[in-house]
Amino acid sequence: MIFGGLPGKVHDNAMNHQTRDFAMRDITTTMPLTVRMRRSPFWARSHAAGAQGYIVYNNMLIATGFACGEEDYRHLKSAVQLWDVGCERQIEISGPDAARLVQMSTPRDISKMVDDQCFYIPTVDRRGYMTNDPVLLRLDEDRYWVSIADSDLILYYKGLAAGLGLDVSVHEPQVAPLGIQGPKADELAARIWGAQVKDIRFFRHARVDVNGTPMVLARSGYSVQGGYELYFEGETGGDILWDQLMEAGRDLDVCAGCPCQAERVEAGLLSYLSDITPDMTPFEAGLGRFCDMERDPGCLGWDALQAKQTPTRQIRPIEIAGDPLPPQGTFWPVEAEGQRVGRISSSCRAYDFDCNAAIGLIDASHWEPGTAVQVHTPAGMREAEIKEKFWGKF
Amino acid sequence: MIFGGLPGKVHDNAMNHQTRDFAMRDITTTMPLTVRMRRSPFWARSHAAGAQGYIVYNNMLIATGFACGEEDYRHLKSAVQLWDVGCERQIEISGPDAARLVQMSTPRDISKMVDDQCFYIPTVDRRGYMTNDPVLLRLDEDRYWVSIADSDLILYYKGLAAGLGLDVSVHEPQVAPLGIQGPKADELAARIWGAQVKDIRFFRHARVDVNGTPMVLARSGYSVQGGYELYFEGETGGDILWDQLMEAGRDLDVCAGCPCQAERVEAGLLSYLSDITPDMTPFEAGLGRFCDMERDPGCLGWDALQAKQTPTRQIRPIEIAGDPLPPQGTFWPVEAEGQRVGRISSSCRAYDFDCNAAIGLIDASHWEPGTAVQVHTPAGMREAEIKEKFWGKF
Repeated sequence: MIFGGLPGKVHDNAMNHQTRDFAMRDITTTMPLTVRMRRSPFWARSHAAGAQGYIVYNNMLIATGFACGEEDYRHLKSAVQLWDVGCERQIEISGPDAARLVQMSTPRDISKMVDDQCFYIPTVDRRGYMTNDPVLLRLDEDRYWVSIADSDLILYYKGLAAGLGLDVSVHEPQVAPLGIQGPKADELAARIWGAQVKDIRFFRHARVDVNGTPMVLARSGYSVQGGYELYFEGETGGDILWDQLMEAGRDLDVCAGCPCQAERVEAGLLSYLSDITPDMTPFEAGLGRFCDMERDPGCLGWDALQAKQTPTRQIRPIEIAGDPLPPQGTFWPVEAEGQRVGRISSSCRAYDFDCNAAIGLIDASHWEPGTAVQVHTPAGMREAEIKEKFWGKF
Repeated sequence: MIFGGLPGKVHDNAMNHQTRDFAMRDITTTMPLTVRMRRSPFWARSHAAGAQGYIVYNNMLIATGFACGEEDYRHLKSAVQLWDVGCERQIEISGPDAARLVQMSTPRDISKMVDDQCFYIPTVDRRGYMTNDPVLLRLDEDRYWVSIADSDLILYYKGLAAGLGLDVSVHEPQVAPLGIQGPKADELAARIWGAQVKDIRFFRHARVDVNGTPMVLARSGYSVQGGYELYFEGETGGDILWDQLMEAGRDLDVCAGCPCQAERVEAGLLSYLSDITPDMTPFEAGLGRFCDMERDPGCLGWDALQAKQTPTRQIRPIEIAGDPLPPQGTFWPVEAEGQRVGRISSSCRAYDFDCNAAIGLIDASHWEPGTAVQVHTPAGMREAEIKEKFWGKF
């Protein structure tokens, strides 16, 4: 039974492009801070330090900037910043079936991880599509933290554990990472926790004493400037640690900061739900090197991925010609000879390289380095070129 | 191995209360509109109509108001509004095991649903804790939409389906609900789809013709003023339908709107992640009437819920004395004789009842109607009383 329907001609949708264009220009809005936006133990300090705005990530507030974009970028590359990245929530998976449960979610073989190791793992559903791109911390042979990007991956593990009756506990502990990022991060951390922390290798972790409580300090972070993430446990005392770090690092010019769009885009650090979307495989995201495809390590999406190893579109670095562009509010279409061949998901002024750097998802027909394409931007159509590599050091 | 630790006394945390208080007063911020915040086919029209701000809900933008709070409230109660509630995402579950999979997630027996029916279902994990509070639509005996509140419940279903190898498809279709809410919603809908839509009963749905495409129209919505939700399918054409409704309802004073905090709080409509948190059972949320506890319908959390039928805290209506209060940015502690006995999660000025209405989670010791308590608000300590019922009609 289908009711009704208006007689006569439907309005034409000539307005569509105008409204889309309008939306792209209107790049900020007002957001009330409500109960549903959780705040970390560092939030009050970070906020008081002058966070200019926030986005919501895993139902938590994460700052978007403190000074102007270029100033935040140059400071991150020359000094050290404290980042309230409490929005990187932890899923704690523990018990006899912990490793098996984690392995079901990712094509990366985790069987050889050691207890002080971190792994970047693409996680996938049974069709091989990405559900998150977390950092996995092995704390013990039967205890892991999955430090997630922006999706409720905990519900996937809960579903699996419930359906299969696994002997495992899955919960979200009170853990909020604090980023200590920048070239002077080693020196700052050493002043608080001793020179030994300088010896922590990349994507390894150790325990440090945080005012009487042992906590995990990992050499990791969402920048390529070096540094750590401290996995702060508990609901209180974040302000105390924050003040200690600020005090200890005064002569290092330590400042409040946050993930820097310009720095992470020029370095090709991907963002789940911006660059990586849930309709993409790890191969499309350019994460094939994190997939062990020789034999199935126990991933429920492995069979599906077998058939998807040769993508027809993939993430690529792209340089967009001309003056700096406005911040990106929507995907920007990428065209060649008037045909759509991809989209730009993130872009920035790469100040150190004096160009517009971007992350795009590009069809195989046009993804070779050197290929000329055009990008629809809010500042008009721009010439662009597929690049061989991203700009920032890695 | 635990490194370091600062010698000497830790700073005392006398600042804690000040910073918390500061955070409560600072109730709005700036949010850039980025790629990760998806927009519905109605967003451009709703935005152009003057949405004053947004929050992020299921990674989509949802407006928080258009006029002042009281004006939006009075208009909703007297006329009709169009709400872009595209953030109510759909999980489409179809195939031979569809009903079984849905049933695993909820203690409400769905076996007697008919094809044009909607069910409000608490969903729970295997420990009986709430994962969402969606509206379930049965489209067919092996095809359901789960119209979700703010969590990625799709990942729970994907985990279950993958782990158990169920013969079922789980995906998020391109469906964005449009709310048509208010006492004149029936008249407006009838002008577009014919008088038959007035016969759709509460929590039933029918198919209507939307410019050539059949779509689901349900008598439901996140207000108690009556009306519909149209489950709009596709990425384009939302503006056309919006304009048709605005044109057809001009003499009914149709306006753009959004869920109204004052109207929903006074009526006791709960919000997942505000009033209901993932550490609560349906019984604590006051949703016991939606749990079939006589025999297990096939819910994986049913055994755990058996043991949790007598909660020690539960959601209650609360009247807070005095002048109107500022908007709520954090939980407000509820006390009695200096002891904490609960929290306020949502509050409003209930203009029609000339009081401050609130939703609280209150310990059994103090939840009897008539009990006097005190509430810590940003405007100071206030006297308050547990009420028998919420204020708005239901």
